[in-house]
Amino acid sequence: MQSIVIGICQMQVEDDKPTNLAKAEQMVQQAVAQGANLIVLPEVFHAPYEAEKFANYAETYPGPSAEMLSRAAARHKICLVGGSIIEKDAEGKLYNTSYTFGPEGELLGKHRKVHLFDVEGTVNFTESSVLTPGNELTIIDHQGFRFAVMICYDIRFPEWSRAAALEGAKLLVVPGAFNMSSGPAFWELMMRTRAVDNQVYVAAASSARNLNSSYQAWGHSMIVNPWGKILAEAGSGEEIITAAYDPAYLDKVRQEMPLLKHRRQDLYQLNYSPALKD
Amino acid sequence: MQSIVIGICQMQVEDDKPTNLAKAEQMVQQAVAQGANLIVLPEVFHAPYEAEKFANYAETYPGPSAEMLSRAAARHKICLVGGSIIEKDAEGKLYNTSYTFGPEGELLGKHRKVHLFDVEGTVNFTESSVLTPGNELTIIDHQGFRFAVMICYDIRFPEWSRAAALEGAKLLVVPGAFNMSSGPAFWELMMRTRAVDNQVYVAAASSARNLNSSYQAWGHSMIVNPWGKILAEAGSGEEIITAAYDPAYLDKVRQEMPLLKHRRQDLYQLNYSPALKD
Repeated sequence: MQSIVIGICQMQVEDDKPTNLAKAEQMVQQAVAQGANLIVLPEVFHAPYEAEKFANYAETYPGPSAEMLSRAAARHKICLVGGSIIEKDAEGKLYNTSYTFGPEGELLGKHRKVHLFDVEGTVNFTESSVLTPGNELTIIDHQGFRFAVMICYDIRFPEWSRAAALEGAKLLVVPGAFNMSSGPAFWELMMRTRAVDNQVYVAAASSARNLNSSYQAWGHSMIVNPWGKILAEAGSGEEIITAAYDPAYLDKVRQEMPLLKHRRQDLYQLNYSPALKD
Repeated sequence: MQSIVIGICQMQVEDDKPTNLAKAEQMVQQAVAQGANLIVLPEVFHAPYEAEKFANYAETYPGPSAEMLSRAAARHKICLVGGSIIEKDAEGKLYNTSYTFGPEGELLGKHRKVHLFDVEGTVNFTESSVLTPGNELTIIDHQGFRFAVMICYDIRFPEWSRAAALEGAKLLVVPGAFNMSSGPAFWELMMRTRAVDNQVYVAAASSARNLNSSYQAWGHSMIVNPWGKILAEAGSGEEIITAAYDPAYLDKVRQEMPLLKHRRQDLYQLNYSPALKD
């Protein structure tokens, strides 16, 4: 990939699936018009973020959502990280799954959300009551560029981003939907820190805030560079943001302060099982 | 320890060691007067932060700095994390070492900086040219309260704070001296994130900015709660800040969003060798 311009489509998600798919396709086209060639949609962009409704929207692969994503990627000759959708496997199990398609419309990889979001208190949500977690670190190679895809709560665990960076990912793509409690408290903090700790770019794609929805997304999709600087940030509404990935800048940051090399591997080791494609 | 009030003495460090020790003792007394009983001094508080001068200030244990710390802890019946000083061992090796003393003046633990700060670029500094790194995770038990001590660059590595939290530390005490490049970029981000990721309190003690020094410290000592909220923050000058440690609040945060339990230990494991006292 000669020159990468990341685009994030912070779309508003409605109850009607065809409306959501049409909106996604339209916003991808707009992001392309703005120069983006690695485009990211938000988490669960085809359905409202309500656990009890997930089964109604679930799709076996390839369903209408994946077909739209593949078609849009091919039409625009881009790399499209399709946020996530609710996937149903052959046994009927449901997953929160992100499909990524390349410029020929080919499936480059998929990520099933590994860390399910179960919280009580200010916000109550129990993903594990309806979803099955994935078990794989998702690294995608595209035209010599390596990036990782993880979904929302996956970013809360420093081990997961670290593993992705150690596998050579230079960008973490994070479709997510933090809420009105975790959003202002943690969204920017997480995205900037994972970028800084691992000296990678981070592209975090939220849905827009839908005041008619029971789950209010924080929004604030952002693209962060390896110094932790926010290159582009959305507000809470529907919006497209773009920023260029700069490999020379990443190299410069890693050279000046070689954090990954300064890890005391004689004292601690992170063990994990990557699922690499090559 | 019935009720813990953390105090941080953001003291200005001068070239003259006796002046520094007197200033530290005086500020500890002031922090006690403000109600603090777990008091923290900054990194290398007895000497200017210039690697080539470290040997001139180095002390074998117990030297004048450690004696002052022990005496101050006993006089005020407090727990005193003595920032750090340059330690010389029996072989003549130098370390960046933090000594912690209890209310009887007893040594509760010591931490030798594990990650040495070697950077080039906007700021140039090579600690490893004169210092030897420590090799131990430092966990301190004091009257039923467990906390960790790490020094400055140690906080840049998420594995180290994670290991401390997994060992049961409820507070990370971090004497540090970020500079005018890393300070505005990373100081607050690191302290807040380590608190949030591990659901612990963080007490980060910087020296005050000394405009006559070749190394300009960022200052901004801070005490952060497990939600990432900054409870108290200093400016760049000499200042004492205090904040209460609230165990019930920590438990509430961990109950509502059990991050440590949600780690996918079946997929990744952090291996490390703790050096526990018990």
